[in-house]
Amino acid sequence: MTATQSADRQTTVPQDIRVGVIGVGRMGADHVERISRRIKGARVSVISDYLRETAEKVSAAAPGSRVVDTPEEVISAEDVDAVLIASPGQFHRDQVLAAIAAGKPVLCEKPLAMNPSDAYDVVLAEHGTGRAYVSLGFMRRFDAGYGQLKDALDAGELGAPLILNCKHRNADVLPGFTNVHMVYDSAVHEIDAISFFLEEPVVSVQTLTPRSTENAPEGLSDPMLLLFRTASGTLVTDELYVNTRSGYEVRTELVGSQGSATIGQESGLVSTQLPGGRWGGAVPADFRPRFLDAYDAEVQAWIAAVADGTNVAVRSATAWDGYAAAAVCEAAEQSLSADGAVEITLRERPS
Amino acid sequence: MTATQSADRQTTVPQDIRVGVIGVGRMGADHVERISRRIKGARVSVISDYLRETAEKVSAAAPGSRVVDTPEEVISAEDVDAVLIASPGQFHRDQVLAAIAAGKPVLCEKPLAMNPSDAYDVVLAEHGTGRAYVSLGFMRRFDAGYGQLKDALDAGELGAPLILNCKHRNADVLPGFTNVHMVYDSAVHEIDAISFFLEEPVVSVQTLTPRSTENAPEGLSDPMLLLFRTASGTLVTDELYVNTRSGYEVRTELVGSQGSATIGQESGLVSTQLPGGRWGGAVPADFRPRFLDAYDAEVQAWIAAVADGTNVAVRSATAWDGYAAAAVCEAAEQSLSADGAVEITLRERPS
Amino acid sequence: MTATQSADRQTTVPQDIRVGVIGVGRMGADHVERISRRIKGARVSVISDYLRETAEKVSAAAPGSRVVDTPEEVISAEDVDAVLIASPGQFHRDQVLAAIAAGKPVLCEKPLAMNPSDAYDVVLAEHGTGRAYVSLGFMRRFDAGYGQLKDALDAGELGAPLILNCKHRNADVLPGFTNVHMVYDSAVHEIDAISFFLEEPVVSVQTLTPRSTENAPEGLSDPMLLLFRTASGTLVTDELYVNTRSGYEVRTELVGSQGSATIGQESGLVSTQLPGGRWGGAVPADFRPRFLDAYDAEVQAWIAAVADGTNVAVRSATAWDGYAAAAVCEAAEQSLSADGAVEITLRERPS
Amino acid sequence: MTATQSADRQTTVPQDIRVGVIGVGRMGADHVERISRRIKGARVSVISDYLRETAEKVSAAAPGSRVVDTPEEVISAEDVDAVLIASPGQFHRDQVLAAIAAGKPVLCEKPLAMNPSDAYDVVLAEHGTGRAYVSLGFMRRFDAGYGQLKDALDAGELGAPLILNCKHRNADVLPGFTNVHMVYDSAVHEIDAISFFLEEPVVSVQTLTPRSTENAPEGLSDPMLLLFRTASGTLVTDELYVNTRSGYEVRTELVGSQGSATIGQESGLVSTQLPGGRWGGAVPADFRPRFLDAYDAEVQAWIAAVADGTNVAVRSATAWDGYAAAAVCEAAEQSLSADGAVEITLRERPS
Repeated sequence: MTATQSADRQTTVPQDIRVGVIGVGRMGADHVERISRRIKGARVSVISDYLRETAEKVSAAAPGSRVVDTPEEVISAEDVDAVLIASPGQFHRDQVLAAIAAGKPVLCEKPLAMNPSDAYDVVLAEHGTGRAYVSLGFMRRFDAGYGQLKDALDAGELGAPLILNCKHRNADVLPGFTNVHMVYDSAVHEIDAISFFLEEPVVSVQTLTPRSTENAPEGLSDPMLLLFRTASGTLVTDELYVNTRSGYEVRTELVGSQGSATIGQESGLVSTQLPGGRWGGAVPADFRPRFLDAYDAEVQAWIAAVADGTNVAVRSATAWDGYAAAAVCEAAEQSLSADGAVEITLRERPS
Repeated sequence: MTATQSADRQTTVPQDIRVGVIGVGRMGADHVERISRRIKGARVSVISDYLRETAEKVSAAAPGSRVVDTPEEVISAEDVDAVLIASPGQFHRDQVLAAIAAGKPVLCEKPLAMNPSDAYDVVLAEHGTGRAYVSLGFMRRFDAGYGQLKDALDAGELGAPLILNCKHRNADVLPGFTNVHMVYDSAVHEIDAISFFLEEPVVSVQTLTPRSTENAPEGLSDPMLLLFRTASGTLVTDELYVNTRSGYEVRTELVGSQGSATIGQESGLVSTQLPGGRWGGAVPADFRPRFLDAYDAEVQAWIAAVADGTNVAVRSATAWDGYAAAAVCEAAEQSLSADGAVEITLRERPS
Repeated sequence: MTATQSADRQTTVPQDIRVGVIGVGRMGADHVERISRRIKGARVSVISDYLRETAEKVSAAAPGSRVVDTPEEVISAEDVDAVLIASPGQFHRDQVLAAIAAGKPVLCEKPLAMNPSDAYDVVLAEHGTGRAYVSLGFMRRFDAGYGQLKDALDAGELGAPLILNCKHRNADVLPGFTNVHMVYDSAVHEIDAISFFLEEPVVSVQTLTPRSTENAPEGLSDPMLLLFRTASGTLVTDELYVNTRSGYEVRTELVGSQGSATIGQESGLVSTQLPGGRWGGAVPADFRPRFLDAYDAEVQAWIAAVADGTNVAVRSATAWDGYAAAAVCEAAEQSLSADGAVEITLRERPS
Repeated sequence: MTATQSADRQTTVPQDIRVGVIGVGRMGADHVERISRRIKGARVSVISDYLRETAEKVSAAAPGSRVVDTPEEVISAEDVDAVLIASPGQFHRDQVLAAIAAGKPVLCEKPLAMNPSDAYDVVLAEHGTGRAYVSLGFMRRFDAGYGQLKDALDAGELGAPLILNCKHRNADVLPGFTNVHMVYDSAVHEIDAISFFLEEPVVSVQTLTPRSTENAPEGLSDPMLLLFRTASGTLVTDELYVNTRSGYEVRTELVGSQGSATIGQESGLVSTQLPGGRWGGAVPADFRPRFLDAYDAEVQAWIAAVADGTNVAVRSATAWDGYAAAAVCEAAEQSLSADGAVEITLRERPS
């Protein structure tokens, strides 16, 4: 793309950030579609996937994109300015490290790595370059409601945070979803929310398993209640319930010393005088209606950060957040088979 | 009071139930005013209080009532059909036992006794008579919202109960309010709510103390989170926060396998276009606006039960509920200084 | 009923107010049941009905009551202290006048009379005695929500009232319900609400008939919109819709110069995670759940006023309110077949 | 901008639609900023404004844009593919006609013209070309809530539309705002909403002016109530209140024969336990928080329509909608000084 010459001024149209996408399953394909249709200032230039056919199909809907065979080719391509990683989690560490080595900003879907140690490698590698490279895909940080609660808290409107109550509900989950998935796939969002809202480390976690719904598969404790305690003593409850057979709901309440506030309550179209003497509304079937705008905002913020050279957006989760989440998840997993709370000690945070 | 003779029929006007009231501090005086002004079919006939002067003053506003010196005189008075006990808790056990011995139905404010053993004495004494005598003043059972949630649960509309989330908030508490009061005065209401909604015993309790509000007096853990587990595995969370400096709020959410439901959310007058770009409503200053109707309904149901000879209303808390609450409170107090959950084993329930 | 002698004091138990009830169809029978079971300080002593059998049946459930043949016998009975009129509307004027003549306080169900002229007769008759005798059964004045809105308005929290928006909805109506019933039976409640909230006369009314629901019987304009203007220029909209096939809803919004406020929005049990991805609550089938407490409060306030000799409760609708409502209803009926607004001029109000 | 050659495929990156913007006051400048930062597939290429300095300033923030002296130069520029008109309303007709004549799609802010006759000229001119060119800036059609209500209506969930209740509130308005502005600037949004939701013409309008708020300037009737009737008999109420001194609120309720539904109720962050015993939330200060997304969606939909050659988005208001709105506004203005309703007869709609 060349610059358009203005008749009056020397300002040129900025070139789009060229994004390479690794992994175009459901989430990666959504990102390609997002970048191609809604994200200003970016376009998808190179795509790879384990399944070449999938990559070809997704590329066909992303004008100007081409398909390559390997993640390494995406990262090293000359026409890739920034890398978006949506491959399976076990590949994230190495791919992020490769992007850092290539000096290319990266937006990596969660998790950053499969264990705290691997995640810490990324923290150190990025720190070693002296620059920011890594954004982690905790998109709720870009949700309007999350932002409103964060702003109210930061403005002191609620006083000191004492308790953070989280609820996370899904209509259903895929077969094979276990207690470990409950921690690493579901609770991980609230674990990052703690970092986002409270900006301090979790020091212990305890898992409680109430009686399960009859809709839960054998072996899954559903609902599950996780209790976290932060360094300054804020208590966090996270109620996870993934087989409601209803819809997707995420609610967050901050109980503060000067007031409490809740986000994520049902809104939108409210019907009355419904047949059968009912009133109410609809719960979305999955996370898309609730968080679609947050995904768009996340990627748009990332592109803007790449364009202005800061690489990581202000509200974005960083490699350190990814490491902290990995450490808390590991402890939460341990607490599934432990009595009482499991303590967490994080490694040193590079300054 | 003599019967009015009907010209047409032999039916006579039923005589009012004559209620003796022991203890007329704030709560007892409220009951006297309630019975004198709003409760159909009852009147206060005899009053006693530790402070004779207080008794005289309260009696002056209860037409037809007289003052006696001792609780024993109230219980044994010929013009007392039923006894309402609102004296300090340490006297409840003996006064209730005396009422049972006198064959008079009794409505006793919480607690039934100061410890589980004393409470169990009452259970056995009542059981020994072969009749029902004891209603315990857990008035929330008569709150319209509690009733709606109980009905929805009993009707199967929510499926099996998995988690019960309770929130209990006060603007402030009296000086000298400690963690023990938090359990015995505040949490006790939710402890009985478990009996009411779930109809099964609590088998363990764990107390968690987050960072406290700066408004809490030294030594009080405020807010406090209690976790209960019932025999069938339902988990109950009880968030107590008694120095909000705002108002009185009690909310209850039942998370079920077929749906969830909440009571106690703010309602009433909703204002919009308020100066300063605000919308919203008011939180009542104390429990009276929220539960005044429940108190009235409780006493009216009690009078109806006394009048029809069943003595205890269907939804009323019984001596057994009082014993169970005492046992759970004792364990909750122990858990304040314990790691993890404290287990609870109830004595045998007389059939 | 004789007084109980107190051992300590000379205060006697006050005798119950003995209420005579004229007309015990559904509404009158409800009142008999209410007075017999829930209203403190009153009992039903004498009953009459056009159908003797109905009167006997209702009387059987009102201990101490007897049946007489005529309304006149109810009014003149020695054992009747106050009269409750729930007969068909065409008899109200004469029965109220007879009660006034007998010097007995009366609670008359709406309407006070079948036309403004007849209603004004009652105003003058009561005024001629120099005392208050007449309470009119606009029970919404005793609804908690109405009270909250009235209090907010009187306290100046909303500034000057500019617009009052009313909505009045029923699931269905009896066969034979016509546009005239819509005015005289449904809208009349909001017409009195104008008197209650705004305390000034209506000076014009205009009726608008949108497209009707397919559920409305032939000839009924349903929904219907009535527009009222008060002396000071407040505009009132009243949206009536009586075949919603859903439930009973009454909502009122006051738009003021310093804020707006709404009452009657759905509350109670709020369910989430319902099957089918729904959330919401229930709308009551008819007016009883919504206004049962208001009816009780209305009658209790009336009994208290009779007992203290003021005869009419502070918030109660008076004969003048009944006359004003009749005048507005007449104009609203005229406006059904008129273009534009119909003006209303009230007669002089006796001071 | 030239195409990027793909190594694997012949697909090229599509060129951005080059937008010329006429008038860059507040609204036009917002559009330039929107297109430059958030609208995918478009960029601002040419700008004109009555104030050259303003145009230069706005252009400086739109990379690749240049400034020209006249609207005509914008329309005829080779590097302008589509025209956005945000100049004062009196110039709209001629500028839109010029864009049609140049064969360039145009998004024109409301109004389309200053009177129905001028607006109809545009309808005919566009119709004469046999193609669609004109989108009108009624952005509420792209609001998520409007979309939900429209979808529910179209799906038959609410049955037949009987009444549409609209409320439109502003914290304040600029000095000099008169009753005529109330109609043409404020009510015009709801007038188009009628077209959007009900898809049929308005046949009469009546204006009612209640007592005004003390905050309204001399001569402004605030609040104002407009009543519209559509061809099939649906009644529309539009309550306008532009000096609430609070914030911006737009609420819409559709009363249908099978159910009713409301959009625009307060949501977002809901606070409880606020100091002073309050609960509630914030009302936005102006329309931007409420409708920012709608503006973005409107322009994005327009760009997509231009790119695919249909020129006008499916949900967009057309020249005909602009003509109809002008006709209704003219009648509403007449009704300000008329008794009763003013009838509206539209000219023939070209097929």
